[in-house]
Amino acid sequence: MERVDIAIIGTGPAGVSAAITAKVRNKKILLFGSKNLSDKIVKAHEILNYPGFPSISGTELADRYNRHLKEMDIDILNKKVTAVYSMGDYFALQTDNEMYEASSVILATGVVSGKPFPGEEELLGSGVSYCATCDAMFYRGKDVAVIGYNSEAAAEAKYLSEIVDKVYYIPMQKDIPEFDEKIEIINERPLEITGESKVEGIKTNEGFHKVDGVFILRDAVSPAQLVPGLELVDNHVKADMQMATDMEGLFACGDIVGRPYQYIKAAGQGNIAALSAVTYLAKKAKG
Amino acid sequence: MERVDIAIIGTGPAGVSAAITAKVRNKKILLFGSKNLSDKIVKAHEILNYPGFPSISGTELADRYNRHLKEMDIDILNKKVTAVYSMGDYFALQTDNEMYEASSVILATGVVSGKPFPGEEELLGSGVSYCATCDAMFYRGKDVAVIGYNSEAAAEAKYLSEIVDKVYYIPMQKDIPEFDEKIEIINERPLEITGESKVEGIKTNEGFHKVDGVFILRDAVSPAQLVPGLELVDNHVKADMQMATDMEGLFACGDIVGRPYQYIKAAGQGNIAALSAVTYLAKKAKG
Repeated sequence: MERVDIAIIGTGPAGVSAAITAKVRNKKILLFGSKNLSDKIVKAHEILNYPGFPSISGTELADRYNRHLKEMDIDILNKKVTAVYSMGDYFALQTDNEMYEASSVILATGVVSGKPFPGEEELLGSGVSYCATCDAMFYRGKDVAVIGYNSEAAAEAKYLSEIVDKVYYIPMQKDIPEFDEKIEIINERPLEITGESKVEGIKTNEGFHKVDGVFILRDAVSPAQLVPGLELVDNHVKADMQMATDMEGLFACGDIVGRPYQYIKAAGQGNIAALSAVTYLAKKAKG
Repeated sequence: MERVDIAIIGTGPAGVSAAITAKVRNKKILLFGSKNLSDKIVKAHEILNYPGFPSISGTELADRYNRHLKEMDIDILNKKVTAVYSMGDYFALQTDNEMYEASSVILATGVVSGKPFPGEEELLGSGVSYCATCDAMFYRGKDVAVIGYNSEAAAEAKYLSEIVDKVYYIPMQKDIPEFDEKIEIINERPLEITGESKVEGIKTNEGFHKVDGVFILRDAVSPAQLVPGLELVDNHVKADMQMATDMEGLFACGDIVGRPYQYIKAAGQGNIAALSAVTYLAKKAKG
């Protein structure tokens, strides 16, 4: 597999901006994220303070971003990166079914909204999973619950239903997806994931559901899980003014590095991160 | 004079963005700068990495910024702020002929390109001036040189020529302005401003011109001169991730706080600075 110069994870304003600037600077890039761009953009009702657009809907901004990417021949690789490992000289990026390599990485995956559920962190890897494509096989013939936050979660639930015995879908998004009879929608509020050494079930505000696995499919993976060992501050990635993290060659921008959670701020930081990565690569090339 | 919540100095992408976000947050603002927006925007040939606009000329971006400001009822106060003083509870902003008051200030004046001329700092206030409107009267009947960097400098030179005896205009911009016979254009490179206790003349690569005053009219005033006492790092204003400077209530964004010098980065930081000012004002109101 060919190693790229810069892997950018996330297709919100930060990731899109980083990709555009990296491409302007002639870097070989990979942009990982949703083809429809970040749900957070698309769902924005009206954005008033993105200078240049007096009033623009999220859909329209996403549309303009897509046209900008297209104009610059930037493709979005529609894969979920589940982990980034520093290999010393480069980074390895793990997706559901493939590994990628990059000399530098820009994290632009946004923030995880809300706290983890009680039991979530304790049972991660013992029945709690963030990736249906990665872990579905372990639940063949078993029952699982999906706590789904977006349309991709719904798609992952469908995939799960082809493999496991029974899928309960607990929708956290506003628009409740439509499923066939293989998936049962449970319109309840999850309270706790229970189990001693492995998941035994999920407690909700209305009862208890016995399951062997719980897939929590949020918009963003928590940074601690995405990049093991990365330094955080208040649940955000610690970055300096140049968007450098404490890992050499790894940069972060947008909501993931902290407030304010604003489109134009994220776009600005994406630009900085890309240029910092370019500088890093130039130094590395010099030796 | 009524005190505003936030005074924003500069009409580049940082200042425009700060003004828009401050206005969205219902703050009473003053936006100081050129009505045509920053020369740096207008002169940009083609901007490729402002997400949302695949390729946009400086003139077109300036036009869109102006429409955005108009749409939000934000007026540009076409005055040059020559100094900002912290008065404890508020800030006083000095312009050529008037003082303004603001509870907080956002500096977005860009960077001064190049080093000061030899003699410039030593003779500042003793014949060297950065503001024709402020100081023209002192040179009635005398000869002055103008080192001009932009179209506003040319306009100031015209004003000077109505008052002083003779104006030499040394153009630093590409487009050499047209003047009537009262102003003599000297197409030479300034090397040094000479004089013991006061300006006696200006040395160029081609000779010496005896003058009583030298007006250096750059795009931006240096931050040290604009805000006496402000902490700098490498000739830039020292600011943290929230765009706060070491003076309470004073924020800075865009080129003035450091590289990269990029439109989208400046716009992003303007947004952060405005929201930080809003937070500062809220805390202040609480006591």
